[in-house]
Order: sequence, then structure tokens, then C-alpha cells
Amino acid sequence: MEETPKGSRLHIAIFGRRNAGKSSLINALTSQDIALVSDVPGTTTDPVYKAMEILPIGPVMIIDTAGIDDVGDLGALRVERTMQVLNKTDLAVMVIEPEQGVTEFEKELVKAIRKRNLPIAGVINKSDLLSISPEQLAQWSVEIDVPLIGISAKTGQGIEELKRLMIKLAPDDWEGPPLIGDLVSPGDTVVLVVPIDLAAPKGRLILPQVQTIRDLLDNDACAVVVKERELKEALAGLKQPPHLVVTDSQEFMKVGADTPPGVMLTSFSILLARHKGDLETLVTGAKAIDSLEPGDKVLIAEGCTHHRQADDIGKMKIPRWLRQNVGGELEFEWVSGGTFPPDLTKYKLIVHCGGCMLNRREMLYRLATAREAGVPIVNYGLLIAHLHGILHRALAPFPLAQMILTE
Amino acid sequence: MEETPKGSRLHIAIFGRRNAGKSSLINALTSQDIALVSDVPGTTTDPVYKAMEILPIGPVMIIDTAGIDDVGDLGALRVERTMQVLNKTDLAVMVIEPEQGVTEFEKELVKAIRKRNLPIAGVINKSDLLSISPEQLAQWSVEIDVPLIGISAKTGQGIEELKRLMIKLAPDDWEGPPLIGDLVSPGDTVVLVVPIDLAAPKGRLILPQVQTIRDLLDNDACAVVVKERELKEALAGLKQPPHLVVTDSQEFMKVGADTPPGVMLTSFSILLARHKGDLETLVTGAKAIDSLEPGDKVLIAEGCTHHRQADDIGKMKIPRWLRQNVGGELEFEWVSGGTFPPDLTKYKLIVHCGGCMLNRREMLYRLATAREAGVPIVNYGLLIAHLHGILHRALAPFPLAQMILTE
Repeated sequence: MEETPKGSRLHIAIFGRRNAGKSSLINALTSQDIALVSDVPGTTTDPVYKAMEILPIGPVMIIDTAGIDDVGDLGALRVERTMQVLNKTDLAVMVIEPEQGVTEFEKELVKAIRKRNLPIAGVINKSDLLSISPEQLAQWSVEIDVPLIGISAKTGQGIEELKRLMIKLAPDDWEGPPLIGDLVSPGDTVVLVVPIDLAAPKGRLILPQVQTIRDLLDNDACAVVVKERELKEALAGLKQPPHLVVTDSQEFMKVGADTPPGVMLTSFSILLARHKGDLETLVTGAKAIDSLEPGDKVLIAEGCTHHRQADDIGKMKIPRWLRQNVGGELEFEWVSGGTFPPDLTKYKLIVHCGGCMLNRREMLYRLATAREAGVPIVNYGLLIAHLHGILHRALAPFPLAQMILTE
Repeated sequence: MEETPKGSRLHIAIFGRRNAGKSSLINALTSQDIALVSDVPGTTTDPVYKAMEILPIGPVMIIDTAGIDDVGDLGALRVERTMQVLNKTDLAVMVIEPEQGVTEFEKELVKAIRKRNLPIAGVINKSDLLSISPEQLAQWSVEIDVPLIGISAKTGQGIEELKRLMIKLAPDDWEGPPLIGDLVSPGDTVVLVVPIDLAAPKGRLILPQVQTIRDLLDNDACAVVVKERELKEALAGLKQPPHLVVTDSQEFMKVGADTPPGVMLTSFSILLARHKGDLETLVTGAKAIDSLEPGDKVLIAEGCTHHRQADDIGKMKIPRWLRQNVGGELEFEWVSGGTFPPDLTKYKLIVHCGGCMLNRREMLYRLATAREAGVPIVNYGLLIAHLHGILHRALAPFPLAQMILTE
């Protein structure tokens, strides 16, 4: 069910000399999280493709370039192999061994990667064994014109910073998992519950709703679009129960009651959280709501400065719900547009809007920034679902995220 | 079924002194066309509201201001009545009797109308009895600052020019009939057939499709959205046949075959033609296709300059279909964006695009220009439906237009 089309996985090639620590880095990027690893078999000297989840980057294809990691210049065969890998690469990560530092191998590699106009993130590994001075790091960085970070794949130091750099360098057209297309089979019927309230744009639908319909059509499924008040009637009019019901988060309670228990139910927010954010990171954030205590600081962040309605969701509703949940006062701060405040560590929780005005990379960058500061982050839709006690049901199409919630 | 919500009817108040010919003008505006007249009863001295169709303006509410047409200044009672009428007016038409010309009555009236920021079209009537010189017309026009046209309600001279002026002066927010909302009752299911081809925008739906879904939701109906290939399956999955099937014009043949004979079928083009154009005028244009003869000149007009696909519909497909239909060569000319060529009379037919980039007023202005030149005009969708022999079926939701086609 969570099969991600190859096209929407960010393809990350890990380059480096044999002793630089490529494998440890791959483990560090994935091992502290739940990693779904499926190796594509190959000979020991062929590059290995591994489908993985990296939080908060989402589904990726890691290309382990064993076999083109000889120290020294790149021979004819190895150049050809490197080129084959680069043909499939969206982003290159170059792992550098600190004792030898930048050698001819790295310089040749950077040339080959730059020739394809591909982004490169560089790491000096093994900071636990040999600490590199900031001056040395800067000098190497200038020498090969590649951003460099000191990390330790062994201790995990710098890994979150690297993820943030990778997100920043990812290509513009990087799309991530589909909205809904991978959740349906041809001929499936999906019911979309679209309330028409004051926030709905005049004569239109909001973009995620349109994109969901389109994604269903692209995948040979049928979309039944209905307001919450007509949902029961629409379900009764179908000979078979639908494969899935997707609702606007704000109608979750009513829609949950009107949808038969056997039918999978989720929300546009959750689809969007996966499509342009990282569902697992946000579910971890939702769990953190239960650990809030009176007096804690909460940051409410919105991606754009929209016209506020009376009883605005970010300004009024969410603070009210959180106070009720914690049974006491909380200290709220708000930020909108632009970026996060410089010091996130003082917050116990970040609540982010759905990010409809942010692209995937911007959203992931924010998630990565929160992770790096060690602050859980949740979005509006998941928060609402969690506080209404329906998040578990709404995650049914996403077993991995559901597992994180219950563990 | 063709009940037009009051809000979408253009409310046109006809003012003028008692002998100016208000009633004849109302007859002239509507009588050469099929007029659906339903008088709202009132005393003889009260304004009368008449729901009518004026081609190509569409459904209008004519306000006949009998009772406030005394010659002389506007007395207290009459001012109040005038104000009551103006509260409901979108556009004022002032009928002037040529012998007396512009009097205090007209000047007071213009003042009252201008105070409400309402547009005024002025006509000097009875040009068949007393011809007014262009100089005199211009002088009066300047005197009261109102555009004036010389007409004869009796002979019909100038009536089409007046319609064009009325369209030009109509308010910006004039919307016309809904896309689909008046064709459904609460709880109805409507199947929308949305093919996904190269012309579909990436990850989205085209605007008329989104607007149709929204209009259905606004009217408590349920939209089943499906590609043409899944239509049969979707219909089979419904316990009751849908109230209506709406398809993209280009899939009319396949969709017509897959839709049970008892189910009403129409196209987005036809919905759009009514919503932002005038369905009856365009159906008259469709009929004219059958009168084309080899050697005739045909103008193909597009509202915008879009990126042309291979086998472009306006450049390639429609000329090919028309040639096949007429059984010989035709002389085509093309125009896009901007306006029509100055001399339309040389064309036997104008074929216009759906006008998705034009608003209702712009589209109607083009229809009125064609009518004034006496040239039939049809749009892409209606032409396709007619040439495929399915226009009659596709007009089932619109009995008036269907009548025009068969008469």
C-alpha cells in the first residue's frame, strides 16, 4: 500500500573512498528511524540501490556506490560506472575521510557531478576520531566548491544538519510521494468529503482537493465528491462501499460517524502531510501533544500570512483545544511567513499549518530544522485528528505512521 | 428545469415618457426571438417585472416602468417609485421620443440613475417616423452624458446595436445562468467525465470542471468524477442511474454509447455556452453548419493565444470536420485574442472557442457583434456535438435550445 513510485523517490548517490564510511553514513541516515530496506541485488562491485525512508526526507533511493570507490584517479571503467549512477541521481553526497582529506578522487568526482549539473553535499566523516578545525573545513570547501559539514556517522553528530543540507540542495522539481495515487487500484471508488464553508474560495475548490481528484483519475480510480451533509446518502447510493473516504479535517467527527467502520478513512491534511512533508515526523509530533504540561511554550507557525477569520484556527481554536487537553495554561508564540525563530529549543512543541503555500522542500526544511533542535513538530490536520481521538483510524492507509503512533 | 435564479438574471429597467414607446421596445428586444414571459401582477400604475430571454443576452428581468412615465418633472411619489425600481436595476435603458427630444424628465431621470452608479443606455425611438441627424444625436448625448442610439422599435432598426451597447454597459459582476446548479435537486448524483489527455494541466483539472463540481456541491448534489474509460464501471457501481452525465465534448461518442438511453447527457461545453454565452444563439449557429456550401468563408475565432498542440482543434480538426461535412473545400480564416475582423458579413459562419479566458460580457459582446452582422456563430463544443449527431441528445436539459435545433 505504501509503495512509492520510483519517480517520486529522491535518488541520493553516496560517493566516497573505500574507507570513508559510506555504509556507516547510510546507516546513520536511516538507522535511528524505521527504515524499509529492500536491496536490489547486484555483484559486490556494482552500485547497490536501496529503497529507504529517511525522516524527514521521506521515501528515498540510496545508491551505494561500492565498486567505484578506489582511492586514486577514476579509471575508464569506474568513470563509466560513475556516469551510469549519475544518470539516476538527484543529489550526490560525498563522504570524505578526514586523515587524507580532499584528494584527486574527490576533485575528479566533483568535476563529473558538476558536469551533470547535480547538487553535491559533502561531509567530513569520523569527527569522533579526528576533529577537523573550522578553518580546514572552510579551506577544503573552497578548494572543491562544495558545502562541507563535519559529521560522525558513528555517534550521529551532524547527521540532522546534513539532512537539512540535503533538503536544501534537492532539485526544484522534487515531488515526493503522490497525494493519493499509490493508495488506490484501477477501478477503486474514493469518496471525497468537501465542506463548503466561508473559507472555501468563491466558485472553486481548494488546490489539494483538485489535486486529489486529478491523482485519482490519473490512477484510473473514481472520485465521488460530496459535502459532509450528503455523505450518508452518497454512501448509500453505492453498490459497494468505497475503497477510502477522504475528508476535510474539520469535519472528521461527523464524517467518522457516517463512514461504516470497515471503510478506510483519512483526511486531506494527512494526504498533504505525506505528499509535501513527512508523515512519520508529524505523527511523532502528534504524540508529543500528550506530554505537554501547563506552562510549556508552544510555537504556532504558518507558512503564509492569510486573511484571518473570526475564531481563526491558528490564533484561537488550536490554543483553546491544546489548553483544554493539557488542563491548564500554555504559553503560545506565533510566527507566519518567512522562517522559524532562531532559538527553537525553548519550545516543547511546534504546530505548523498544512503548508499549502510551501513546496515540499520548504516544508521538509522546516521539519528538519525542528528535528535538529530536538523539538517535536505537528501540523494542524494531525493535531485536530489526534485531539479528536481519530488519528489512529485516519492513519489506516499508512501502517508505518500508524505504528509510530501506537508504539 | 430552466428556472434561472433571480440573482443571475440581468435586471433591465426601461424608462421613458408615456409616448416614447417603452412597450414596443420591449417587444422588439424579445419578439423576434422566443420569449418566455411571465408577468408579475401589479396595478396598472406599478412597475411590471417580466422574466424574459433576450438573445444573445440570455435570461433577463425586464422592468417596465409604467406609472413613472409622466411627462414633466418627477413628483414625490414618482421619485420614490423610481428609487424602488433602481434598487433592483442592473442596467437602465432610457427611451426618448424624437419630437420632444431630451426634456427635464430625461435629465432628472439621468441624475437619479447616476446617483446609484448604474449604467444607462439611451435610445431615440421611432427613427422610421422621424429621422434624427447624427449631429442632433451627438448633441443630446453630450447634453445628458449618456450614449444614444437611433432605433425603430417598430422596424427593428438599431435593436441589435442596442443589445451590444447593453452588453457593454452591463455590470462587471454580471454572471448569467449558473453552470449546472439549476439543473439539479438536492441529493442528485451527477457523473462528470473528465478525460486526462495531453491538454490537461499538470496535476490539476481545468477550471470549468472544478467550477461544475463546486456548483454541484453548492446545490447539495453529489459529483462522481471519472475518466471516460472508467465510466461504465462507475455507472454500474451506482444503485440508481445518475440524474445527469456531463462529458468533455471530445469524448461525446464514447460517453454517449456508455450512458444508458434514459439518462440525460450533456457536455461541459454546453454548460459553459449557457453560463457565459448564450446557448440559443449558439444552437442557431450549429444549425447553420448544414447550410454551408463549398467555397464559403468560415471564420475560426479563439479568445486567447494558447500553445497549439499537434492536430490543433481550431487549426486542423474543425476545418477537417467541416470540409468532410460540406463535401468540398471551404475558405478558412483565423483570428485569436483581441477582437473580430471589422467586416464579418463576408463569412457564412463563425466558429468560436469555448471562451474559457473570456468573461460572460466579452463573450456576449462577440455573439451580439455576429448577430448584428447577420452571421451565425457556433462554438467548438456545439459544433463537435452537432457534427457527431449528438447535439439533440446533449440539449435534453435545455428544452428551449432543443426546440430551436429541431424547429
